[in-house]
Amino acid sequence: MPKVSADHLLARRRQILTGARAAFARHGYEGATVRVLEDGIGLSRGAIFHHFPDKESLFLALAVEDAEEMAATVARQGLVQVMRDLITAPDAGWLGTQLEVSRRLRTDPVFRHGWQSRTEAIAAATRARLIRQRDAGVLRADVEIDVLAGYLALVLEGLVSHLAAGLPVGHLAEVLDLVEGSVRAR
Amino acid sequence: MPKVSADHLLARRRQILTGARAAFARHGYEGATVRVLEDGIGLSRGAIFHHFPDKESLFLALAVEDAEEMAATVARQGLVQVMRDLITAPDAGWLGTQLEVSRRLRTDPVFRHGWQSRTEAIAAATRARLIRQRDAGVLRADVEIDVLAGYLALVLEGLVSHLAAGLPVGHLAEVLDLVEGSVRAR
Repeated sequence: MPKVSADHLLARRRQILTGARAAFARHGYEGATVRVLEDGIGLSRGAIFHHFPDKESLFLALAVEDAEEMAATVARQGLVQVMRDLITAPDAGWLGTQLEVSRRLRTDPVFRHGWQSRTEAIAAATRARLIRQRDAGVLRADVEIDVLAGYLALVLEGLVSHLAAGLPVGHLAEVLDLVEGSVRAR
Repeated sequence: MPKVSADHLLARRRQILTGARAAFARHGYEGATVRVLEDGIGLSRGAIFHHFPDKESLFLALAVEDAEEMAATVARQGLVQVMRDLITAPDAGWLGTQLEVSRRLRTDPVFRHGWQSRTEAIAAATRARLIRQRDAGVLRADVEIDVLAGYLALVLEGLVSHLAAGLPVGHLAEVLDLVEGSVRAR
């Protein structure tokens, strides 16, 4: 494939994903009809579904992208940093996707099963970073790694739910200081 | 009104609320059609809507009941105990109602405004208990009460979301020990 064409393909794909993300965040998955997607993306349904077989594939591509990016951020900077970024500039698109993933985990056993490897990849990245931090002596040593990882994951779930509900950021920066302090070596 | 009749009325009301709670938890608010409610409650729509004007009022009665009970438990035993009870015996009915309340807080500005006093009552009960605990010297003194309250509320939001997604309880008991330890005086 000539290079220009591959670049064009990637740019088109990016345009579709970005527009779809905003549409899902604003209207929810169900509410983002094909018509709404066309308006949000700025392309006809023909053009959109040339790149993705259907709306479902479009959503899954976003969810997978987010899960991979999150695992990478966790590996580099840790889960608390993911949370700090979230309260500094809540990303409506990311929150919208996360909420739909949560809803499906709750209501759709097939999705839950298929998504397991994604959840595990993020959990593994969290664990790996915690182990490195423990080896470096910055993490408290009196609580098991799995418990610390479960704790951080629970706070993140709460944060996603809180921000997605449009509740105020309020004292959340100080709350995250407390969370970080409570996993650190004394 | 003769006493027998008042007792009967209360028992009927209780039967309707209990059946509706289970139906909302299993089918979601939208999925709990009038037909589903009739089956779950064991009464005809005529009998049900003699006690509650409509499905919406039925749901609100449950949500208000839960919010009041939660504020009372918090005042007596604290928010961490609410969470411990939740992982010991997750109450599908309570979780179902909480999830629908969360969904509406997110998507329905009128509901969000109307519900504010409920949210504030639980927050006030949490604060009042934390102040009593600080006065008793069992709470850490280096973090503001509002931050501690926000922290506990965030963990509870995460826990509701986690359990409602059917995710395993796993290490959550130890996680709550960590949470409790992190607000306690050293």
